[in-house]
Amino acid sequence: MAKNEQFVEQIADIEADFPRWYTDVVVKTKLVDYGPVKGTMVIRPYGYAIWENIRRELDGRFREAGVENAYFPLLIPMSFMTKEAEHVEGFAPEVAVVTHAGGAKLEEPLVVRPTSETIIGHMYGKWVESWRDLPLRQNQWCNVMRWEKTTRPFLRTSEFLWQEGHSVFASEEEAERETLSMLALYREFARTVLCMPVLTGKKTEKEKFAGAVATYGMEAMMHDGKSLQSGTTHYMGQNFAKAFGVQFTDKDGALKYGYTMSYGVSTRLIGALIMTHGDQRGLVLPPPVAPVQVVIVPIAAKKAGVLEACGALKERLLAAGIRTKIDDSDNSPGWKFNEWEMKGVPVRIELGPRDIEAGKMTVFRRDTCEKEDGYLLSEAEEAVKELLGKICAELYARAERRMRERIVPAAGLDELLAGVNGGNFVRAGWCGERACEDRVKEFAQATARVMDDTNDMPVCVCCGKRAKHTVFFARAY
Amino acid sequence: MAKNEQFVEQIADIEADFPRWYTDVVVKTKLVDYGPVKGTMVIRPYGYAIWENIRRELDGRFREAGVENAYFPLLIPMSFMTKEAEHVEGFAPEVAVVTHAGGAKLEEPLVVRPTSETIIGHMYGKWVESWRDLPLRQNQWCNVMRWEKTTRPFLRTSEFLWQEGHSVFASEEEAERETLSMLALYREFARTVLCMPVLTGKKTEKEKFAGAVATYGMEAMMHDGKSLQSGTTHYMGQNFAKAFGVQFTDKDGALKYGYTMSYGVSTRLIGALIMTHGDQRGLVLPPPVAPVQVVIVPIAAKKAGVLEACGALKERLLAAGIRTKIDDSDNSPGWKFNEWEMKGVPVRIELGPRDIEAGKMTVFRRDTCEKEDGYLLSEAEEAVKELLGKICAELYARAERRMRERIVPAAGLDELLAGVNGGNFVRAGWCGERACEDRVKEFAQATARVMDDTNDMPVCVCCGKRAKHTVFFARAY
Repeated sequence: MAKNEQFVEQIADIEADFPRWYTDVVVKTKLVDYGPVKGTMVIRPYGYAIWENIRRELDGRFREAGVENAYFPLLIPMSFMTKEAEHVEGFAPEVAVVTHAGGAKLEEPLVVRPTSETIIGHMYGKWVESWRDLPLRQNQWCNVMRWEKTTRPFLRTSEFLWQEGHSVFASEEEAERETLSMLALYREFARTVLCMPVLTGKKTEKEKFAGAVATYGMEAMMHDGKSLQSGTTHYMGQNFAKAFGVQFTDKDGALKYGYTMSYGVSTRLIGALIMTHGDQRGLVLPPPVAPVQVVIVPIAAKKAGVLEACGALKERLLAAGIRTKIDDSDNSPGWKFNEWEMKGVPVRIELGPRDIEAGKMTVFRRDTCEKEDGYLLSEAEEAVKELLGKICAELYARAERRMRERIVPAAGLDELLAGVNGGNFVRAGWCGERACEDRVKEFAQATARVMDDTNDMPVCVCCGKRAKHTVFFARAY
Repeated sequence: MAKNEQFVEQIADIEADFPRWYTDVVVKTKLVDYGPVKGTMVIRPYGYAIWENIRRELDGRFREAGVENAYFPLLIPMSFMTKEAEHVEGFAPEVAVVTHAGGAKLEEPLVVRPTSETIIGHMYGKWVESWRDLPLRQNQWCNVMRWEKTTRPFLRTSEFLWQEGHSVFASEEEAERETLSMLALYREFARTVLCMPVLTGKKTEKEKFAGAVATYGMEAMMHDGKSLQSGTTHYMGQNFAKAFGVQFTDKDGALKYGYTMSYGVSTRLIGALIMTHGDQRGLVLPPPVAPVQVVIVPIAAKKAGVLEACGALKERLLAAGIRTKIDDSDNSPGWKFNEWEMKGVPVRIELGPRDIEAGKMTVFRRDTCEKEDGYLLSEAEEAVKELLGKICAELYARAERRMRERIVPAAGLDELLAGVNGGNFVRAGWCGERACEDRVKEFAQATARVMDDTNDMPVCVCCGKRAKHTVFFARAY
């Protein structure tokens, strides 16, 4: 068992040193490695397969909603960035700039896209002419770059992968409705695919996207009680339409500016699901995104018929659409158990001569870390499918219960500080003034994550004046 | 009919001005648009959907072959580029360079990847330790950048999308075998998915990849008789392994360098299929990659039951896995016919009251531009599937026949010149000397596309000495 124990030892204690636990887990399970340029990451096959599953699931939902995929250029003329005043202020400090190309200095420096509102606004300005061209709703899956000082794999890297959807509508109402419906889509996706509960709501002025009229966020509670912004949707009003001349001739013959919105999620979601579900043994992957959903471990593999039975079971599960793998390596069963537990595979099936003879299989659930008996080999497909669904529901329920238990109210700054120190989200009133928001940050290193739709907290947690909003405050990644 | 004719007029004459025909077609069918930075393109939804189909088909084949997807960083330290001498010489003139990021000048300039042998070599150097780690076979789908002076959408753009596969093996034999088997995979893919015949073979020293021991290419004949390099595979020997320290401890305990190879195809394939199959009416899309495989045009759409019957047929075809669309816009049927013919949709079904009453449908094949009667509505799924397969086979056969007819032999330079002037590929002997290859280029503006496996042409087309290789010479994109 020495080898097994070694694995567990390699991961830092999740309670004592969560940041170290995180980097141990993402590197040791080969999700990711550090790139040669500071702040960059290499997404290794096991991590990239999670991203492919996320992408497939989200892409299908966008398609269903009528959004089309396209691809826009990586390099944006520097002059585009300055066309929307708030936008350049927000993004200029963190862009990477191409100054030379093809052996010569460029006349105008080019920015590696940190986000594509400007260049897509420019193209939409060319394409939109009449109300018949609206709505225009496109999305791209691509890489973006934001030069960050402090980086961590998946959570904050200078380059990351994401999708960014950009739409133009003829009316304010439609654009606002899309901003909320995409937020709802993200929320449903987080629940059913990542098994991850989230809080959704409007961001404060301070926290909104540079150039937006309003930003909505989806926030998830990580194992340490900190919040991770996991997706955002932005209503831009006519800000970008005016900057890039996105105009259309309306039914009444008048020339009008369109209303735009955008929305995005990134490889950060991989970090989110790790820090939501992971435990001391390592990853706990939600079945819908797990690269391997079932690992079959042969017991007494050299006994006649064992590998054949494992192979037959694998083929049956694969045919049923279940991502299945056999570990027929030379390692001991115990070593394999630890390895696949660390890698977060939702279900392990152990199959030995006695199981085969009895027509049964032993099933280990990664989420509960418990073995379950009584599964019939003959009914494996249905049983495993049902179990994966059950794991999904229970992962969500567990995380949801945990989040609910750790949302605490606060009437004043001391309570708020105690709340976030205890690893909670703090629900509190806010007068709406930037000064109070800044004071909370300074006093408790907590920020306004999202505002609640209700406004049931009577007074501002900071100044005690009448509250205009109820806000979820938390420390955040 | 004025409107219809207008469409046809808008596309330049395919025989008289093929370059103009090409740009007319790609822009007017909304496959692509020009980006704001010179040499960049925006891939619009209709073009991007073709790329998604190409990607899905190829990705499945790679997966089947045991290759895993990953993602490596966009930015490569300049010092990496110089580690392999030939590589830097080949790529340095066309790289884009990031010199500033996060508001400061970088200590070391970073290159926007033109290809990823260097950075992947660096990571493989970290990951490979033992013979047990080999073979290592990964692929990435990503954007790359090569600053080109003359650009054309899909064919040559400063940024393009591609896949690049990179493998390390313990032995020369395995790496060489993979180089050839990936070439064979591309060839089969070109045939069955793009319906495009290709010539495959080894490139000359002059035409090989910068840093490779040997490059193999897949060349396709375009409508104008020019060749388009449509995919390449490279055997690197130990060149990159030595430059990046990709070493492993072999079974015998000795430390050895690995043997690497790489392979790639890009959005250029979209240009290839357009210039292989297109005709005066516009695009002719191969069914496996067509975003819309069947367009249903209602005839006398306002008559009772017509739109309902079209809708029911669409649902049936969709359920059978056929990408189907109804054009129920206000345009006239004639206008719709031209529009969808220009967009290259393989099959058009016209459905009017008389068809519905008779339980039949009228089918138009884009490849032959002929209407076919006698299709029963009740058997639509099977009939359309069969027809799409038939179109595929016939598109390939037509292009293959055309290519074979336009491969001509040449015994001397004058014949070679006459051959390429006539829009042919010229098959000729070559002594193997660079001077002769250069002379052919100068004399006939033709280059050695690939070498034939056979060596059945006795003398060099240029110097008349004994031939070492039989070469396909052509003008090329």
